[in-house]
Amino acid sequence: MGRWRPDARARLQEAALTLYGERGYEKTTVAEIAERAGLTKRTFFRYFADKREVLFWGSELLEQRMVAAIETAPASTSALGLIGAALDAAAVRFEEVREFAGPRHRIIAASPELRERELIKAMSLTAAMTRALRTRGLDDTAAALVAHTGATVMHVAFEQWVDDPSRTPFQQIARDSLAQLREIASTG
Amino acid sequence: MGRWRPDARARLQEAALTLYGERGYEKTTVAEIAERAGLTKRTFFRYFADKREVLFWGSELLEQRMVAAIETAPASTSALGLIGAALDAAAVRFEEVREFAGPRHRIIAASPELRERELIKAMSLTAAMTRALRTRGLDDTAAALVAHTGATVMHVAFEQWVDDPSRTPFQQIARDSLAQLREIASTG
Repeated sequence: MGRWRPDARARLQEAALTLYGERGYEKTTVAEIAERAGLTKRTFFRYFADKREVLFWGSELLEQRMVAAIETAPASTSALGLIGAALDAAAVRFEEVREFAGPRHRIIAASPELRERELIKAMSLTAAMTRALRTRGLDDTAAALVAHTGATVMHVAFEQWVDDPSRTPFQQIARDSLAQLREIASTG
Repeated sequence: MGRWRPDARARLQEAALTLYGERGYEKTTVAEIAERAGLTKRTFFRYFADKREVLFWGSELLEQRMVAAIETAPASTSALGLIGAALDAAAVRFEEVREFAGPRHRIIAASPELRERELIKAMSLTAAMTRALRTRGLDDTAAALVAHTGATVMHVAFEQWVDDPSRTPFQQIARDSLAQLREIASTG
C-alpha cells in the first residue's frame, strides 16, 4: 500500500464515487476513500487536493481540448461550426469517462456545494471558449453569444446523454441539439 | 427610527450598496447598514433576511414577470419570439433599478460567495423559463435550448448595458443581441 501504482487515480475515483453514492458526499472521509481503494491517505493526496477534487479532476483537460478544437479548426469554419468542433472534442472526453459520468452527476445534483462548484467550472469553460472564439476573429458580443450557445447545447445534450438507457453517443445528441437550435433560430 | 416608513426598503438598499462599495461586502454588518440608513436593525430584518438578500431582493419579481410574458404572449408567437417577450419584460424591470444595477454588479463580481448566489438565481430563472416554454407547447429539449438561449442573451446584453456610458436601453441591446444570435445561427 502507498507505493505508486499506475491505476491508483482511477481506483481512488471509483472508491470515492461508490462511497459518495452509499453514504453521501458530506459524510465520506478521505481516509475511508483511501481504505476502500486499498491505498493510504498519503497516496490520495498525491492525486487529489481534497475529496471534492476527485469529482472535478479532468475538467481542465476537457476545457483544453474544447479550446484546442476551436483554435485549430479550418479557417473556413463558421461560428456555429467552431462550436460543433468543440462539442465533438467534448464527446471524445465524455465517452472516455462514461462509466463515471452518471454516478458523478447524481452525487453533484444532491449537494448544493457541489452544484455551485460545477457552475463555476461551467463559467470558466464558457469564458475560455469566448477567448478562443475571439482569436478566431469574432467580435466580443458574437464570441460571448456563441460560447454561451455552445455551453447551452453541451448542457442540454449532457442531460440527455448521461441517463440515456440506449447509450446514444454524446456526439450524436449534441449535433442533433445544435441542429435543433439552428432550426429554432431560423424559423423563430 | 424603527417605525414603518414607505421608503425604508430603498434606503436600506442604498445604504447597503454604499457600504459594500466603501468597505467591502464581507466587512459590513447589518447594524452599520441600518445606522447609515437612519433605521434600526429590527427594521432591517423586517425587509431582508440577511445582508446578502439586500442584493438579491427582487429577483423573484424579475422571474415572475419574465414567466408571465412567456405565458401570455399571443398564440402565434415563435419560440424565439417568446424569449423576446421575456427579455422585454426584463428590460422594464432593469430600467426601474438602473441606478442600483452597476454598483450591485461590481459588488457581486468581487465576492465568490455572491457570484455563486447569482449563478444559482440564474439557474432558477432558466428552469422557470423552461417550464413556461413547455406550457407553450415546446418539447423538453426545445424548451431547454430556448430557455438557455434566453439566459445567454440576457447575460450578454446585461454586461453591455450595465456599464454603458451612453445609457442605451436594455431592450434595444437585448433585441440587437437576439438578432445577432439569429444571424449567427442562420449563416453558421
